[in-house]
Amino acid sequence: MISVNQDRLWRSLMDMARIGATAKGGNCRLALTDEEVQGRRLFMQWCEEAGCELRIDPIGNIFARRDGTQKDAPAVMCGSHLDTQPAGGRFDGVYGVLAGLEVIRTLNDLDVSTRYPIEVVAWTNEEGSRFTPGMMGSAVYSGKLDIDVARARPCMQTGVRLGDELQRTGFAGTATYAQVPKAYFEAHIEQGPILENANLPIGVVTGAQGIYELEVTIVGFESHAGTTPMNLRKDALEAAANMIASILDLGHRIDPDARVTVGHIDCYPNSPSTIPGKVVFSIDVRHPQQPMLQKLVAEIETICDQRAMTHGASVDVQTVAAYEPVAFDDQCVQRVRQATSSLGYPAMDICSGAGHDAVNLSYVAPTAMIFVPCKAGLSHNELEDADPVHLAQGASVLANVLLDEAM
Amino acid sequence: MISVNQDRLWRSLMDMARIGATAKGGNCRLALTDEEVQGRRLFMQWCEEAGCELRIDPIGNIFARRDGTQKDAPAVMCGSHLDTQPAGGRFDGVYGVLAGLEVIRTLNDLDVSTRYPIEVVAWTNEEGSRFTPGMMGSAVYSGKLDIDVARARPCMQTGVRLGDELQRTGFAGTATYAQVPKAYFEAHIEQGPILENANLPIGVVTGAQGIYELEVTIVGFESHAGTTPMNLRKDALEAAANMIASILDLGHRIDPDARVTVGHIDCYPNSPSTIPGKVVFSIDVRHPQQPMLQKLVAEIETICDQRAMTHGASVDVQTVAAYEPVAFDDQCVQRVRQATSSLGYPAMDICSGAGHDAVNLSYVAPTAMIFVPCKAGLSHNELEDADPVHLAQGASVLANVLLDEAM
Repeated sequence: MISVNQDRLWRSLMDMARIGATAKGGNCRLALTDEEVQGRRLFMQWCEEAGCELRIDPIGNIFARRDGTQKDAPAVMCGSHLDTQPAGGRFDGVYGVLAGLEVIRTLNDLDVSTRYPIEVVAWTNEEGSRFTPGMMGSAVYSGKLDIDVARARPCMQTGVRLGDELQRTGFAGTATYAQVPKAYFEAHIEQGPILENANLPIGVVTGAQGIYELEVTIVGFESHAGTTPMNLRKDALEAAANMIASILDLGHRIDPDARVTVGHIDCYPNSPSTIPGKVVFSIDVRHPQQPMLQKLVAEIETICDQRAMTHGASVDVQTVAAYEPVAFDDQCVQRVRQATSSLGYPAMDICSGAGHDAVNLSYVAPTAMIFVPCKAGLSHNELEDADPVHLAQGASVLANVLLDEAM
Repeated sequence: MISVNQDRLWRSLMDMARIGATAKGGNCRLALTDEEVQGRRLFMQWCEEAGCELRIDPIGNIFARRDGTQKDAPAVMCGSHLDTQPAGGRFDGVYGVLAGLEVIRTLNDLDVSTRYPIEVVAWTNEEGSRFTPGMMGSAVYSGKLDIDVARARPCMQTGVRLGDELQRTGFAGTATYAQVPKAYFEAHIEQGPILENANLPIGVVTGAQGIYELEVTIVGFESHAGTTPMNLRKDALEAAANMIASILDLGHRIDPDARVTVGHIDCYPNSPSTIPGKVVFSIDVRHPQQPMLQKLVAEIETICDQRAMTHGASVDVQTVAAYEPVAFDDQCVQRVRQATSSLGYPAMDICSGAGHDAVNLSYVAPTAMIFVPCKAGLSHNELEDADPVHLAQGASVLANVLLDEAM
C-alpha cells in the first residue's frame, strides 16, 4: 500500500486557500471569476510541474493527464471542483482536485508506472452560485446538459453569459472526449456530521440519495390584525406554520435516512399588523431509496392539502426538480472499501447527502467516492474545517484505488 | 332626530377619492405628499363654503369650526384623517372627516344653532406610512408626543423631515389650544367583518383593545440540507413553525376577543438547501382587557421558550410596543347608543381592534366612536368598500350625537 505526503497535500490546500480568501477564514472563488481563474492557473502550474499533459474542453473542464504505458488506453479518472460558494470553505471541492494531484506527485516520487493513464479533472461550476445549474461541467461531459445551453446561461449577479466568461478567461477549450474513462473516483469532505460523530476517518460512499425540490404556495386572505376575529381568518402563515411543523415531524418519524428541510420562506405582505395573504416556501426532500422518497413526497402533499383545508387557504405544491437516487458501481465501491481496510483505516459505508460531480460521472463510467470528516459537519460555510490527518488518509485511499484500477 | 344627506356625503367621498386614486380603485394619499395636500385644500374649501372658520396647528391638524352661541365655550369635536395607506381605500379616515363636514352642512340646511361650537378636525399622519409613529397629529394634540420630536421624524422613503414637509406645504400652522374639547366623537369604517356578519349598520364603540407588539428571534445552526441527519439539526424555522402554530392555536382557544397575528417572518439564509440558522418573526397580540392581554403574552412567552428547547434553538422575545386597552367615556358611549336607537338603526356594542385618533383624544376629553360596516371587513386595501346607506346612517348618528352634546 502507498501513502501520500500529508504535509505537501496540506500546503497545497493552504496555498490554494489564499486565493479568494475571506475575512472569516473561508473562500470565495465563484466559477470563472478572476479569483477562480487564478486558482485554475495555480492548479495547472502544479500539474505541469508534476509532468502532466493538460487539456481543456469547451465547458472549461481541466484534464491533467499522467500517461500510462498502454497506448490509447482509457483513463482512470479522479477529480472534483475548484469553485466555491460565496461564503464557502477551504475544502469543499478543492480537496478532491488536490488529492488527485497529490496522488500523481506520490506516484512520481515512487517512480511508479501504470498501464492506464491517470487523469485529474477540475470540473467547471459545480456550485452553481453564479450560473445555474450546478454540477455543470460534469453534466456537459456526461452528456446530461447541452454545451450550447450551458454557454448561454446568464450570471445571476451580472447577467454575463457563461460562454462569454469562458472566452474572456481563456477556458473555452477544444479538447474532445475520445473515450469514456475506465473508472471515476472522487474524494470529498462529507459536508455532514456522520463520520465525525462515529469518529471514523473514511466513508465508503455507496451512492447518492435522491432529491425532490418542492415549492409550496399558499393563498389565504389579507386582513387587519386588530379587527379580524380569529375564526374569520384565512391566515396563509398559520396554514404554512402547521404544514412546516407537520412535514418536518414526518421527516423525523418516517425513516432515519430521510432528510426533509424547509430552508426558504417568503410571506406577503410581511407586515406585522396584516394577516398574511400569501406564503411561499421550499421543501427539500431526500432519501437514498426511490420508493421511500416517493412515499415521503406523497405524504407531504397530503399534509399540505389537509392543513390548507383546515385553515381555509388554498395550496399548490410544485415539483421544481427531481433526481432519482444513484447507486455507485459495486466493484468501484468494493475497491474503495478494500483499500481503506488494507491501509488499516476505520471506515463505514455512507450515502452522499449532497450532489457531486461523481453523480454525473456515474452515468457514463463505473464510479465511487471517498468521504473524509469535516469539523462539526459544517460546509457551505466559511468556518468549514477538516483534519490534515483525515485529508491525507482519504488521499491515500484514493492513491491506492487509482493505482489498483490503473495497473 | 335629524338625518344627513346621503347623496351629498357620497358625492364628497367620491370627489375626495379622485385625489390620489389608484388603478385598482383605491387611494394613495400619504401624509403631507402633494396628493394629500390637494385633499386637505379641497376639504378646507368645502369647510369655508360651509361657513366654517379654519385654523391649523403646528403639527398640521386642520380645525374647521362652526361657531356656537355661547362665547368662549369649549368645542364639541369630531374628526379623523385624510391620509391613507400606500395601497389604501376610499373610506378609512376620510369618512370620519367628511361625515363631520356633512353634519355641519346638515345643521346649516336646517338652520340650527348650537350653544357650543362644533369642530371638525383632520388629524395629521394617522397612518404612519411615511413618518412613524402613526396617530401623530392627535398624539401631539393630546400631549402624548412632543411637537419637536414629531417634526424631526424622517420620511421612511426619502429621509425628508416631517417639519420640513409641514413648512413646504404651508401646514406648519400657529393655532394654539386654549381649551380641551367638551367631547370628541369619531365615525369610522369598522375595518373588520363583525358588523357585516351580524348584518348591522352601526357599531357603538365602547373602547379600543390593548396591543402588545412582540419580536421573536430564534437562533439555531445553519447546515447542509442533504447531509445533516434530522436528529442532529438545530433548525430555527422548525422551532419557529411550531411556535407560530401553537401561538395561533392559543389565540383561537383562549378567548373569543383575543387577536393573535404573526404577520412578519424573516428566515436566514433563506436558501432551499440550507437548514435555517436564524428566524425573526413578529407577534401582534390584542385584547380588550389588560389582565387577559398580559396572560396571553405570558403564555406566548412560555410557548416560545418550550418550543425553542424542544428544537435545540435559543429564543429571545422582545416587547416592541405595548398599549393598554382604552375604555371610552360612559356618557359619550351612551349618547351614541341612544342616538342610534332613536334613529331606529339596529346596532351592537363593539370594541375597536385598530388604533384611532379617538384613542389619543380619550386621554384629554370624553370620547366615543361610531363604526359602520365595510365590505368583507376589508381595509388597508385598495378594494376597501362601504355601503352609501350605512355611511349616511353613521353620519346621522354622528349628527344627533354632536347636536345633543352641543345643545
